[in-house]
Amino acid sequence: MPDLYQELDRLADSDMYPFHMPGHKRNLESTPLKGAFRCDITEIDDFDNLHAANGIILEGQKRAAKLYGSDETFYVVNGSTAGVLSAVSSVASYGDTILASRGSHRSLYNAAYLKNLNIKYLPYSFETEYEIPTATRPEDIKEALDDSISAVFITSPTYEGKCADVRAIAELCHQKKIPLIVDAAHGAHFGLSKLVPENAVAQGADIVIHSLHKTLPSMTQTALLHVNGELVDRNRVKRSLSIYQSSSPSYVLMSSIDLCIKEMEEKGDEFIERLVYFRNKIQEETKYCQNVKVLGKEYIDDPSKVLICSDVCTMTGQNIYDILREEYALQLEMAAEKYALAIITGWDREDGIDRLIKAICEIDARVSSSFYKKSDRANRCCIIPEKVYSIAQGWDMEKELVLIEEVVGRVSGEFVNLYPPGIPILAPGERFSEEIVENLKGYLQEGLNLQGVQKIEKQGIIKRGFICVKQK
Amino acid sequence: MPDLYQELDRLADSDMYPFHMPGHKRNLESTPLKGAFRCDITEIDDFDNLHAANGIILEGQKRAAKLYGSDETFYVVNGSTAGVLSAVSSVASYGDTILASRGSHRSLYNAAYLKNLNIKYLPYSFETEYEIPTATRPEDIKEALDDSISAVFITSPTYEGKCADVRAIAELCHQKKIPLIVDAAHGAHFGLSKLVPENAVAQGADIVIHSLHKTLPSMTQTALLHVNGELVDRNRVKRSLSIYQSSSPSYVLMSSIDLCIKEMEEKGDEFIERLVYFRNKIQEETKYCQNVKVLGKEYIDDPSKVLICSDVCTMTGQNIYDILREEYALQLEMAAEKYALAIITGWDREDGIDRLIKAICEIDARVSSSFYKKSDRANRCCIIPEKVYSIAQGWDMEKELVLIEEVVGRVSGEFVNLYPPGIPILAPGERFSEEIVENLKGYLQEGLNLQGVQKIEKQGIIKRGFICVKQK
Repeated sequence: MPDLYQELDRLADSDMYPFHMPGHKRNLESTPLKGAFRCDITEIDDFDNLHAANGIILEGQKRAAKLYGSDETFYVVNGSTAGVLSAVSSVASYGDTILASRGSHRSLYNAAYLKNLNIKYLPYSFETEYEIPTATRPEDIKEALDDSISAVFITSPTYEGKCADVRAIAELCHQKKIPLIVDAAHGAHFGLSKLVPENAVAQGADIVIHSLHKTLPSMTQTALLHVNGELVDRNRVKRSLSIYQSSSPSYVLMSSIDLCIKEMEEKGDEFIERLVYFRNKIQEETKYCQNVKVLGKEYIDDPSKVLICSDVCTMTGQNIYDILREEYALQLEMAAEKYALAIITGWDREDGIDRLIKAICEIDARVSSSFYKKSDRANRCCIIPEKVYSIAQGWDMEKELVLIEEVVGRVSGEFVNLYPPGIPILAPGERFSEEIVENLKGYLQEGLNLQGVQKIEKQGIIKRGFICVKQK
Repeated sequence: MPDLYQELDRLADSDMYPFHMPGHKRNLESTPLKGAFRCDITEIDDFDNLHAANGIILEGQKRAAKLYGSDETFYVVNGSTAGVLSAVSSVASYGDTILASRGSHRSLYNAAYLKNLNIKYLPYSFETEYEIPTATRPEDIKEALDDSISAVFITSPTYEGKCADVRAIAELCHQKKIPLIVDAAHGAHFGLSKLVPENAVAQGADIVIHSLHKTLPSMTQTALLHVNGELVDRNRVKRSLSIYQSSSPSYVLMSSIDLCIKEMEEKGDEFIERLVYFRNKIQEETKYCQNVKVLGKEYIDDPSKVLICSDVCTMTGQNIYDILREEYALQLEMAAEKYALAIITGWDREDGIDRLIKAICEIDARVSSSFYKKSDRANRCCIIPEKVYSIAQGWDMEKELVLIEEVVGRVSGEFVNLYPPGIPILAPGERFSEEIVENLKGYLQEGLNLQGVQKIEKQGIIKRGFICVKQK
C-alpha cells in the first residue's frame, strides 16, 4: 500500500487536470507556498475520506496504530484541541461529572462547556524550587474517584516534561470501569525508543491524544487520537471527530502526519538517539555553569524539554528568553517566572545545539555582574475556588464588568489566568474570594501577564476589573 | 504593515534558530513538503496569536474585512465547518429554535446537536429537469419566521451555484431583529467584480462564512467568518472560534489565507475576468452540442460551477464523470444523478479548459451510439419527516439495528442521506414513515450511494437495516 504523500506526489506529476477544489488548482507558478499547494487536494477518487476512511487514509491510521500499539488510531487535522473535545465528548454525556486536573489544557474546559459537565478538580501544585507545575499523582486519583465520575482526564507529560504514573492511574480507573483519557499532546515521541519514557498507550490509557507537531517532525495542527479497550464507544469517537473537524480536511496536513509516522517507523530509534545525544551534550557542556542551570533528569522526565533557570535570583526566565532571542538569535518556546523553555527534537541541527550551549555558558559567565533584578513574587495561587455555577452556566449568563476593588464575593463570568502557565485561577461560575483577589492584585503589581483582566478608563484614570456574572 | 507570508519568508531566511514547536524545526533537507515546512511555525514573538489577534494576524483580518466590506472578519483554519459551528453557537443558546434549510451542510446539524437546538426546517425542492437542489426563497422565510426563532440559517450560493435573494431575506429577518447566518462557503469570489453576483456580506447578512479554498486560490481547510451589525455578540463569536479551532493554528494555512486576500485585493478583478472568460469559452464552444449540455446562466448563477448534463437520458452524471476521468484525465468535483460538476476558477489554465471543451464535444458526438443505460429512478424524497426527538436526544439515545422490513414507524438514531446531495432524508430523532421507507428501498435497488444504511449478514444472507432509537 503506497503512502499518502507518494500518491499525492504521483498525482502532482501526472497529467490529471483538477476541475475540483481547492480553487488554486495546484497552480504553482502563482504561489510561493509551492510545496504545500502541490499536494493540496480534496476528496477525489482514490484519496479516501478522513471522516469515513476505508482506503489510503485508513491504511495510514493502521500504521500509526501499529507504531504506538493502540487498538485504533485516528488522524486529527484540528490539533490536539479537536482530539480533547472528541475524547471528552465520547465518554461523557450532557451534565456528567468528570475528574480532571486543574492544569488541563483549555480544550478540556471548552469540552466541559459544550457538554455542561461538572468538573471535579484534582489538587495541583508547583514544584517549589523552580515553580514547575507537577503531574497528577495516583494517590490523588484514588482519593477523588467515586461513583459520580464518568471519566478521568489527566495531562502527561506536562508542557514542562513531567510525567504521571499513567499505569497506576489507569489501573485505579479500570477497577471502577471508568475510562482514562491522557492528554499526551507533548508525548508523541514517548515509547519510540527505550531512551525515552513509556507511552501512555502502552501504559493502559483508554484514549490518548498526541500532538505530532510538538515533539515529532510534523506540521502544526496535526495530531493523533488513539483508542484502546472496551470502555470507549468507537462510534462516538468517530462521530465526535467528524463534528469538531473540517469536512474539508487538508491533505497537506494529512500527508505530513503520514510522512511523520513513516519516518518514525523507519527511523524512530535514530530520531530519539539524536534527541538524547543533543540533550546529553547540553547537560554535559553546561554542567560547570554556576549561575544558570539546565534542569536535568531529576526534575524533568522528557529530554525534549530544556528548562534553563537562573540559580542566583538575579535573572528571570523572561530575561533568559529575551537575551537568547535578542543577542543570540535563538527563539525559545516559552518563558515562565523562573525558567525559559527550549524544545529540542531529533531533527535539530548540531550547530543550533552548539549555539544554545555557547549562549548558556556566556550568560552564566556574566550573570553575577548582571543588572537584572529579580522581583519579589506573590505566591502562586493553588486554590480551587468555590463553584457557584457550572462552566456552561457561568460562561453563558449575562455579564457585567466589576472593578477589582469590588470583586470579592462576585462570580466570574470568564477565565482568569496567568500565562504561563495558563492554569485557570478562576473559571466561569467560580467565586472571587478575598485570598484570590489579593493574589490577583499582587500579579498586577508585578506586571505579570494576567489574562482575563479588563482595563477601564474612568475620567482619565485607568482602573482594572473583571467580567462577572450579572447580579440580579 | 508587512504580510504574514513576507514575515514568515524573512524569518525562514534569517539566522533565527527555532527552539520551539513544531518539532520538524523547519529542517527542509529531511522533508519533501519543503514549501510548507519552511513557513510552519508556532506563536513566537512578532507573529501574533489567532485566538487573541492584535498584530500581524489582526492586520490581515482587517484587510479581509475591507475587501468584503464587513465590520469584522476572522481567519478560520478548521474550514467552514468551524465557521458554521461558531456562527450558530454565537446566536443560539441551548435549547433554542432556529430556522434552517433542510439542505444545510452537516455542520449545521452538528451545531444543533451540540446546542440541543430545535430546527424548524424550510421547505426544499429540486429543480425538476436536472434535479438541482433549489435555493431558499424569501416567501418561505416570510411564512416560517415567528417569535420562536433565534436565528435563520441559509446556504447561498449552493454547491451547484444557485443563489438565494439574500437581501430580501435579510430584510425579513431584521424586521424581527433576528440574525441571519449565510453559509456562503461556495461564494467567497462573489462581489469581487461586477461580473459575478453580489456578496452576502454586502447584501446584509449578519454572519457570513466563506470557504477560501473552494473558489479562490487558498489551501484546503481555510475560511473566513464575517460579522456585521449589532445583532451578533462579537465576544461570543470570538469565544466560539477559539473553542472549535486548534490552539496551535497552522501558520501555513494562515499565510495561505493572507496571500489569497492580498491576491484578491490586487488582482481580484483580473481573477474574476479570467474565470468568466473561461466560463464563456466553455459555453460558446459547447453550444452546438446536441446531447451533452453545459447548463448556462438560466440555471446556474455562479460561473465557477460547470454542470455537465446529458439531455438524451442515455447517460448519467456518473457516466460523464467517469469518462472524463478515465479517458481524458479530467478530475471533476462531483457526480449527481443527472449531472457532473466541474469547478473552475481564475487560476485554471487555458489548456485545462480546452481539454474539457474538447472532451465534452467528443462525448456529445458519440453519445447517441452510447451503450450506457439510464435507470428509472425513484422520485427524490422531499419529505420533512415527523420529529419525535431533537437531534441531540435522538443521536445520544441507546440504539439498535432494525431491518428495513421492520423499520416503518421506528425513530432514526443516525443520519440517512443520499450522497450527493447529502441532504438528510432522516436526521436522528425523526420517524421512518411508510413513504420514506418505500423511497429508501428504491434507492437501494438502484444501487445509489445511500449513507446511513447498514449491512447485516444473517446465515449467509445479506440484509439491510438502519440504526434506530432503542424501543423500551
